Amino acid sequence: MHILIIGAAGMVGRKLVDRLAAEPSVFGAQVGRLTLADAFAPPVPPSLQAISTPVTLDLAMPGAAEKLIAGRPDMIFHLAAVVSGEAEADFGKGYAVNLDGSRMLFEAIRHESARAPYCPRLIFASSIAVFGQPFPERIGDDFLTAPLTSYGTQKAICELLLADYTRKGILDGIGLRLPTICIRPGTPNKAASGFFSNILREPLAGKEAVLPVGEEVRHWFASPRAAIGFLVHAACMDSARIGPRRSLSMPGLSATVGEQIAALRRVAGERAVRLIRRVPDAHIAGIVAGWPTDFDARRASELGFRAETCFDDIIRIHLEDELGGTHA
Amino acid sequence: MHILIIGAAGMVGRKLVDRLAAEPSVFGAQVGRLTLADAFAPPVPPSLQAISTPVTLDLAMPGAAEKLIAGRPDMIFHLAAVVSGEAEADFGKGYAVNLDGSRMLFEAIRHESARAPYCPRLIFASSIAVFGQPFPERIGDDFLTAPLTSYGTQKAICELLLADYTRKGILDGIGLRLPTICIRPGTPNKAASGFFSNILREPLAGKEAVLPVGEEVRHWFASPRAAIGFLVHAACMDSARIGPRRSLSMPGLSATVGEQIAALRRVAGERAVRLIRRVPDAHIAGIVAGWPTDFDARRASELGFRAETCFDDIIRIHLEDELGGTHA
Repeated sequence: MHILIIGAAGMVGRKLVDRLAAEPSVFGAQVGRLTLADAFAPPVPPSLQAISTPVTLDLAMPGAAEKLIAGRPDMIFHLAAVVSGEAEADFGKGYAVNLDGSRMLFEAIRHESARAPYCPRLIFASSIAVFGQPFPERIGDDFLTAPLTSYGTQKAICELLLADYTRKGILDGIGLRLPTICIRPGTPNKAASGFFSNILREPLAGKEAVLPVGEEVRHWFASPRAAIGFLVHAACMDSARIGPRRSLSMPGLSATVGEQIAALRRVAGERAVRLIRRVPDAHIAGIVAGWPTDFDARRASELGFRAETCFDDIIRIHLEDELGGTHA
Repeated sequence: MHILIIGAAGMVGRKLVDRLAAEPSVFGAQVGRLTLADAFAPPVPPSLQAISTPVTLDLAMPGAAEKLIAGRPDMIFHLAAVVSGEAEADFGKGYAVNLDGSRMLFEAIRHESARAPYCPRLIFASSIAVFGQPFPERIGDDFLTAPLTSYGTQKAICELLLADYTRKGILDGIGLRLPTICIRPGTPNKAASGFFSNILREPLAGKEAVLPVGEEVRHWFASPRAAIGFLVHAACMDSARIGPRRSLSMPGLSATVGEQIAALRRVAGERAVRLIRRVPDAHIAGIVAGWPTDFDARRASELGFRAETCFDDIIRIHLEDELGGTHA
């Protein structure tokens, strides 16, 4: 099997590659070839170097998608995107990468399949940003995608394209609307959603973190480990069970900031909680107020996708996967 | 006011131009300039010749949209599209015209507005084809757009773009999801939906018509006059009332074929009804079975859009507007 990962240098892409390195049979069949593409040089784990081809390219450049598809990968993970804040600030760049780049990928597959039979599975990382206010109490599988950002618009458009190209038999697409990944490893960043991870990751490492919103703020979460599980499940499942609506809201955990903090207290004690500094920020609070808070992800659950059901587990997974099982 | 109509040679475009000819103040302000664009030479009513510029072009050609927007029209009706059957048969052409053509139009406006302040109202003819099975009993305003055709996919994508360009202040967009237009004037065509009009229009003219489905088949209708009314209302309304979800399912009338025939009997008598020949066609019945049957078009109704509420009126409107008030 030949696997192509586009966006292989990103957080999710690297964790997916690491999972394959740790468990070579994770996709069922033996992986004989691995193409790792990204705008930045993607890292390659030592055990995968013999089968890997790292490719540095910009998916929005003419010819880039054709180059990736010329090798006729059997399985494609499309994780590459200009992130939300940048897509909002740079309208042209967001559309060029997130919409045109994706469409050029789909078109390259169409042209390749016209040359000789070819229908790769394509797993597309979508986002809960496809939804916009006002929301019902829980967002169900029939709720309209009415995004309120350019990023969400681009993801929603790609979902529509994915379904149509799949319906036409050009590819075998599955879109996964990922919850906010928590606890996101690395260092604090300026993303408006960053604090959801910062207030846990930093105290667990003995460092201070800033909380810009109130404890009543509710959001929708899954661990990085769950996100990789979604990708693996989408790669291995019987896609005929999905039907024509090819994008699925992934299961997750709805929790308030207060519930996050209570879980931190249970796992790491009051000393960790005291490292959270409350610095209200009306701008961030305003952005976050427009985000989904809860889902009824029934279709995905029925199709076997699984996420955490308690926040303590989300914290313990971070300890196990990032901190060698312990905290500061 | 400068008005641009793209798709001015089509059935809806011609009726919109005729309405302006009949009622020069229909849009409130005086129309000083009228640009009529289509892939085929658009007809110009004599009373509008002094202010009209007919333009024959293909919106999907590079430069075409820029040419139309260079005149900075205040109001744009975007009615042009490759129709459903052709978009399904010719995948590349459907996307080139219905998606790329529309996007080039929006992009031309973005670039024009970057040169000097400009934010035209843009009224986009969308379609109930943005919806796909399975449906609730009535399709509400929060129901997801999950099209099952390339045409529906292209319209749904344009709706998303329209909302995002409007949110960014580039244009003032309103998308109208038109019901199936009935009674469609002209001659019987091969569209799968054609019989809904044929079984009324032909008997009213003393001619035979073929009914390929059963009387229990239900669908969603509005008259051509109502469709023009939607466009005029969208042009004149306070668009700030719409909010960020800029595409609206238009009101209409849910009726079965049996109810259509009963209305024909009431308006034109048993002799007309006897001209309907039943020739079951499983292929057409299969296509039609996937179409929406009923809507709860609450948002559009609250915003003042109005359609017929009884099928007899739809037939009478055809007699008045197409047959000089009488039937065969």
